[in-house]
Amino acid sequence: MILTDEIRAQEAQGLTYQTAGVNIDAGEELVRRIKPMVRKTFDERVLTDIGGFGGLFDARFPGMTAPVLVSSTDGVGTKIKVAIEANRHDTVGEDLVNHCVNDILVCGARPLFFLDYFACGKLDVEIGESIISGFVRGCQNNGCALIGGETAEMPGMYAENDYDLAGTIVGVVERDRMFRREAVAEGDILIGLPSSGLHTNGYSLARRALLSQYTIDSKPELLGGLTIADALLKVHRSYLKPIMHLIETFQPGRDIHALSHITGGGIVGNTSRVLQEGLDLAIDWNAWQRPAIFRLIQDAGMVPEDDMRRTFNLGIGLILLVPPSTATAVEQSLRSCGEEPVRMGAVVRK
Amino acid sequence: MILTDEIRAQEAQGLTYQTAGVNIDAGEELVRRIKPMVRKTFDERVLTDIGGFGGLFDARFPGMTAPVLVSSTDGVGTKIKVAIEANRHDTVGEDLVNHCVNDILVCGARPLFFLDYFACGKLDVEIGESIISGFVRGCQNNGCALIGGETAEMPGMYAENDYDLAGTIVGVVERDRMFRREAVAEGDILIGLPSSGLHTNGYSLARRALLSQYTIDSKPELLGGLTIADALLKVHRSYLKPIMHLIETFQPGRDIHALSHITGGGIVGNTSRVLQEGLDLAIDWNAWQRPAIFRLIQDAGMVPEDDMRRTFNLGIGLILLVPPSTATAVEQSLRSCGEEPVRMGAVVRK
Repeated sequence: MILTDEIRAQEAQGLTYQTAGVNIDAGEELVRRIKPMVRKTFDERVLTDIGGFGGLFDARFPGMTAPVLVSSTDGVGTKIKVAIEANRHDTVGEDLVNHCVNDILVCGARPLFFLDYFACGKLDVEIGESIISGFVRGCQNNGCALIGGETAEMPGMYAENDYDLAGTIVGVVERDRMFRREAVAEGDILIGLPSSGLHTNGYSLARRALLSQYTIDSKPELLGGLTIADALLKVHRSYLKPIMHLIETFQPGRDIHALSHITGGGIVGNTSRVLQEGLDLAIDWNAWQRPAIFRLIQDAGMVPEDDMRRTFNLGIGLILLVPPSTATAVEQSLRSCGEEPVRMGAVVRK
Repeated sequence: MILTDEIRAQEAQGLTYQTAGVNIDAGEELVRRIKPMVRKTFDERVLTDIGGFGGLFDARFPGMTAPVLVSSTDGVGTKIKVAIEANRHDTVGEDLVNHCVNDILVCGARPLFFLDYFACGKLDVEIGESIISGFVRGCQNNGCALIGGETAEMPGMYAENDYDLAGTIVGVVERDRMFRREAVAEGDILIGLPSSGLHTNGYSLARRALLSQYTIDSKPELLGGLTIADALLKVHRSYLKPIMHLIETFQPGRDIHALSHITGGGIVGNTSRVLQEGLDLAIDWNAWQRPAIFRLIQDAGMVPEDDMRRTFNLGIGLILLVPPSTATAVEQSLRSCGEEPVRMGAVVRK
C-alpha cells in the first residue's frame, strides 16, 4: 500500500481499517452496483436475494431419479496479468465461468449455480464492477445463477492494481446419463472441437515468450490485425450448447464414451485422464491447423514442440472419445449446430 | 520470479513452461501426496475419486421433502500473511473451512462438500501439503467431503513465498427448517457465542497495529505467554456442533429466529443483515470480556472504538436472535454442550 500524506495525517490520530488499507465503503458500493446485474442471473430455483450469508438453491430436481451434483473450482491463472496490463477487465470473469462449465460438462452435467472469489490489493469499484459483469455474462450465457461471491481487499498480498479470481460451479446430472471413463475402449475415435485461443492455460509461458519481443499493443503480421492483447484475451469457449445438443440424441457413456476438457497439461495430459490402464492415445498432430497465436509464441520463445504440447491446447478445447459406430453421426450432429469437429486420432493399446 | 543461472542457461535453449516459472511436476507430486489425506474425508455419498475434472456428490437426500442447497465462498484475508510470516501453514485451511461452515450454518444448513483454491507464486510441495492438511482437518471435523480443488502456480502475481486461499462450501437444509430473518422481531434476545480470537477478519488492521510495536514472536504480557503469532493464528471456530445440537430440540425460524456469523463488518454490521426495516440492535458492549488480543491491537494502533467495533468480532463469533420465551432454554441447551453463551442485547424498534 502506498501511504498518502492524507493517510499519514490520519494515522497520527490512530489507525483505522481504512488507513490500514481496507475500504469497507468501497466494498459496500460495489455490492450496491452489482446487485441488479447479478439478480438477472436468477430464476425461480434461486431462493435468496444476495446479501445474505449463503446462497440458496432449490435441490428438488423434478424428473430426475438419481441426481448427482458435479462441482469444480478453478482460476484463470496469469491470463489475469494480461487483463490487468491491457486494462480490460470485463472478460476474465466470463473465461472463468466457461472454464468451470466445461469442467463439469465432461461428466455430462449442466450448470446450476456459480460463486466467485475476487481478491485485490486495492478495491477499485469501477474495475470490480467490470470484472463482475464478466461473471454475469458468463452465467447468463450458460443458464446458471451467480448465487454468491466474496470480494477481498488484501493490501500487502496483492500489488495495488493486481487481483486474482477464483470460481466454483455446481451442476447436476442424472446418474445413468454420465460420461464414463470406464467405457473408453481401444479404437475409440478422438473428435476435437476448436478452442478460441489459449483459453485459460499457459499464460506464464506465453507472456514470457511474447512480451520479450512485443508489447501488449503490438500487431504482429501473423495475427492479421489483432493485437497481442486481443489474441491473448479471447474468451475461453463454453461447449455447453453443442454438448447439450448431443446429449438430447445420444446416450452418454454408450454412444459417446467420455469427454476431455483441454486445460493445463494439454491434449495428452488431459485426455489421458479418461484412459484405463493399458490404453494410449494416437494423436494426428497435423489433423488441424493451429491458430496463429501458438506459432507466434513458439517462435518468439523458441519453445520446444514437447513443451508446446504439454502446456497449450493448440487449438483444440474439448475432445470427445466416441466408438467408431457412432463417430460419423456425432460429427454430423455437431456440424448441425455450427461446430467444426476435427477427427484427430484414436485410442490405441499401449 | 528469480532467475537462477541454471534457468538462464536453459532459456538460451528456448523457453519452457518450467523456465517460465510453472512446475507441472511439483503440481503432480502435490496431488500424489494429498490423495490419501483427501480420501479420508469421503463417505459413500462421494461418487468420485479425485483427479477427475469434477467432484461428484449424491444429490438424493433421503428423508427430506424440500431440500435447499446453501453455498458460500470465502477467503481468509490477510491472516494468510501471518501464516506466511510465522511459517505455519497447517491451520489456515481449517480457518477457511470453519468460516464457510458458519456462513451456511446461519441458514440452518449442514455441510456436504467443500472445494479449495490455492494460488501461489512458486509451488513448494511441503508447504502445499501442510496447507491442504488444514483443509482436510477442517472437513473431517465438520463431516464434509473435500471434493475438489485447484492449485495454481502464478509467478509474477504472487511473490515467491506468498499464496492465497479461497474455499467454497455447499450444504443442505430442509426448506421449513431454515432460520428466517423475517421471523426476527422487537424484543428478541441476542445470545452470543465466544470466538477463539480474530477468526478471519481485521488482519490488515491488526497486523498494521501490532507489527509496528512487536514482532510476530513477541510475547506481550497481556497475552499470558502466547506470542503474537499464536494469538493471531488461533483457528476460526466452527459452531456446527452446538447449533446442530440446538436444532435437534428447537424449531429454527420459530424457537430461534435467526443467526448471525460475525465476520467483516463486526457485530453490528453482520447482525443488522438479519433485521427487517424499522428494527435496530441494542448491544450491551460490557456484557462480556474482550479477549486480550483486541486490547493489544487497540492500544498498539490507538484504534478508535468505532473502528474496533466495525472491524473485529471482539470476542463474539456467532449471535443467535431468540424470542424471550425460549431464550433461557436455548442458553441451557448451549451450556449442556460446553458453550458459554452471553446475553448481549436485544432487538429494538428504531
